[in-house]
Amino acid sequence: MSTSVQFNSFLSKLKELLGSEGLVTDREVLLSNSRDFGQLASDPILPLAVAFAQSTEQVQAIMRLCTEFQVPVISRGAGTGVSGGVHVLEPCLVLNLSRMNRILEIRQHDEVAVVEPGVINSVLNDAVAEYGFMYAPDPASYKMSTIGGNIATNAGGLRCAKYGVTRESVLSLEIVLADGRLITVGAQSFKGVAGYDLTSLFVGSEGTLGVVVKAVVRLRYLPVDQRDLSMVFQTLEDALVGVQAIGRARVQPAILELIDRPTMEVLDRSYDTNIAELGEAMVLARFDGYGAKAEENVVRQIFDTLPVQLSAAADPFATTLIEMRRTSRGDMQDDAYRMGEDVAVPKSKMVAYVRQVREIAEQQQVDVRFIAHAGDGNLHPTFSVEPDHGGDPLARLTIALEESIRLALEAGGTITGEHGVGLIKREWLGWEQSETVLAIQRQLKDLLDPLGILNPGKAIQ
Amino acid sequence: MSTSVQFNSFLSKLKELLGSEGLVTDREVLLSNSRDFGQLASDPILPLAVAFAQSTEQVQAIMRLCTEFQVPVISRGAGTGVSGGVHVLEPCLVLNLSRMNRILEIRQHDEVAVVEPGVINSVLNDAVAEYGFMYAPDPASYKMSTIGGNIATNAGGLRCAKYGVTRESVLSLEIVLADGRLITVGAQSFKGVAGYDLTSLFVGSEGTLGVVVKAVVRLRYLPVDQRDLSMVFQTLEDALVGVQAIGRARVQPAILELIDRPTMEVLDRSYDTNIAELGEAMVLARFDGYGAKAEENVVRQIFDTLPVQLSAAADPFATTLIEMRRTSRGDMQDDAYRMGEDVAVPKSKMVAYVRQVREIAEQQQVDVRFIAHAGDGNLHPTFSVEPDHGGDPLARLTIALEESIRLALEAGGTITGEHGVGLIKREWLGWEQSETVLAIQRQLKDLLDPLGILNPGKAIQ
Repeated sequence: MSTSVQFNSFLSKLKELLGSEGLVTDREVLLSNSRDFGQLASDPILPLAVAFAQSTEQVQAIMRLCTEFQVPVISRGAGTGVSGGVHVLEPCLVLNLSRMNRILEIRQHDEVAVVEPGVINSVLNDAVAEYGFMYAPDPASYKMSTIGGNIATNAGGLRCAKYGVTRESVLSLEIVLADGRLITVGAQSFKGVAGYDLTSLFVGSEGTLGVVVKAVVRLRYLPVDQRDLSMVFQTLEDALVGVQAIGRARVQPAILELIDRPTMEVLDRSYDTNIAELGEAMVLARFDGYGAKAEENVVRQIFDTLPVQLSAAADPFATTLIEMRRTSRGDMQDDAYRMGEDVAVPKSKMVAYVRQVREIAEQQQVDVRFIAHAGDGNLHPTFSVEPDHGGDPLARLTIALEESIRLALEAGGTITGEHGVGLIKREWLGWEQSETVLAIQRQLKDLLDPLGILNPGKAIQ
Repeated sequence: MSTSVQFNSFLSKLKELLGSEGLVTDREVLLSNSRDFGQLASDPILPLAVAFAQSTEQVQAIMRLCTEFQVPVISRGAGTGVSGGVHVLEPCLVLNLSRMNRILEIRQHDEVAVVEPGVINSVLNDAVAEYGFMYAPDPASYKMSTIGGNIATNAGGLRCAKYGVTRESVLSLEIVLADGRLITVGAQSFKGVAGYDLTSLFVGSEGTLGVVVKAVVRLRYLPVDQRDLSMVFQTLEDALVGVQAIGRARVQPAILELIDRPTMEVLDRSYDTNIAELGEAMVLARFDGYGAKAEENVVRQIFDTLPVQLSAAADPFATTLIEMRRTSRGDMQDDAYRMGEDVAVPKSKMVAYVRQVREIAEQQQVDVRFIAHAGDGNLHPTFSVEPDHGGDPLARLTIALEESIRLALEAGGTITGEHGVGLIKREWLGWEQSETVLAIQRQLKDLLDPLGILNPGKAIQ
């Protein structure tokens, strides 16, 4: 750790490199770069400065200085993560990559795009749509979050049941290492098995192993057709049986979301609708591609004689519901009294899991509501309590949260399906992974970041 | 390295552990376990013994002994690889996992299977088909090769254009480390981002980082329909334009193979057919799922007015051709005078690549023929020369081979799309990857295998 004299020397060298536009110390910029959407345990800690890099060479020079002065560095994009992955924990530099936002190439005949890390997910999607493509991973934050951030967290999304998570769309990466060296991993072809899979090692490593400065991503064909269907079930169990029936009919929806009645009530309040009156759980499905209509028809037939309320064909409200679901976490920012979770379990365990967590919540007198990527078994319970509720509401919230994590692990699942460990889930990582596995990860980190300056205190335990 | 006295002590302890059925030193067993289908540079080298493990505990005990005596160990399945990944290079133990061949669970409602490493790919596929599933990765060797071997090489196959390679179907692995410790990586849920992606690190590591003793694999829905179409084009360029047109129509075939006329001639000789008369290149497509018929119709319409010979609807010969293509490498075993390659390039570069390699081959007076997973840009040229051909035929073959590798790299591709580096492609790895990237891989290897006993001399450089 450096002294303040060293910090000053470090910052003046950075300023020489980046100019006053590139190295910012305004308090409001420091504040907005001090955290992501994840809960803060205490008041925000401000970084020393925010470096807005504009090129790979600048990132390399920045990392050389961070190495020389042993200053921790948190690289970040839009900061839409919810696990505290870019929360500032100590005096450090924030390396903000949002100005490296060029789409360098759209190679139509290769079906790839080459992008800088600061490109917004939806901007890339809009750009490639002209060529008949999509970039498949679509986290709920896709209108704000960057491809670099998506790569750092191996972001999922609604479409990943069919099209895979971020890792499955990343072919090659250019990475600046902790000491400023630049490496290329992966290949620009769809397939490649030369050496160890370093690309996958960097994807999801939350800025703790290197800084992504360029990505070659695979594009998928924009579906020629898409059909949305909402299904309201009288019980949660019925909804899961419905999800399983869709699978047994060998239908692979692009989107298959489950929301419970408490979440339907939240949507009703936000959008002035009345969906919560209809039943206990709603499943939202999108079928896409050349088989979309056939798939929709098969699913309709399955539920034809059952007590399931289906949206009408081409009812725009089903599409609206999918968009509403994307933002169903409300303002998305958790606080001490409201905490969104992100476990994943084997698909058959979803309903039992919801039941068990509801029981725990009831015991602890906290509220819980669920949305789930039902096609993936990835559940997002949101726990909340009223601050002025009797007893010790925060203690009760914590118990409910921790029990929800334990139950997911007992079911064979994981503490994080798509949000990443970041800072907030770090304490639970040892519940999921053995000491040997944790130690291997620490050794991997030491290997690539021997000084421990890359986003220290995140992602691993 | 151990002395022969130590080897004897090592082997007697192994025999105690495994009995004479489990520890085999018969010459023919040693010979058949001394190599894979890849070319041998010299006479086979025999291992000290072959250990046929029957349980995780046995694998752990074996690895503890290998560590104690510092004896190199090559774990293997059916040995159908073609890169020399399990070639014996020195006195060592071969750990044959083919008797660990139980399908432990098929969890219908979770859409996963839990398997031991020795399960044959097609056996798993047959077993899960009863439940309406497939295990998607289908290397040409799928009737012989094991899931463990598929994982070790991150095997591709015909269907991976649509369904992804082996890595995309592996959720969790149990791994025995070099020192005998057992770890679990990944989670049994479809999604999971807890910590670094160790699962992907082990997938494709060719037995150099650990021994896979159990895998939880994701199953995909067995398509309700599949339609095969053969298309014969008058020129190779036309065939690539055709492949691109299929993409522009946003059709994602499950299988999209390209074969050139010399390969068509090989098929004609093997199967007594006459397809080589029809044109210069053939594309074989399989459309599957609910959109299969619609996709087939769209593709037929594209080529309706063009000089392309299409198979009739439901013509069983198109399906036969796909099966013929699976085995189009003939006896599959390369030798000094015949070498199959496995590069991958960006999709748009395929035809230029074929043209360039043909020119090189002509200059060097060697024969070359091509098959390609056209949906992936993964090409398999096979080079051959007559042993009694004038001059130095082997030197000319080597020049052509090496140039074919260089050309793939110049196109932005890789030295190996799906076969793995093994032993044979090791010398070229440094052409693709920088010294820094090579060094990181050596460090990763040292971290997980500090004594260097796990399949030394393979996969990395």
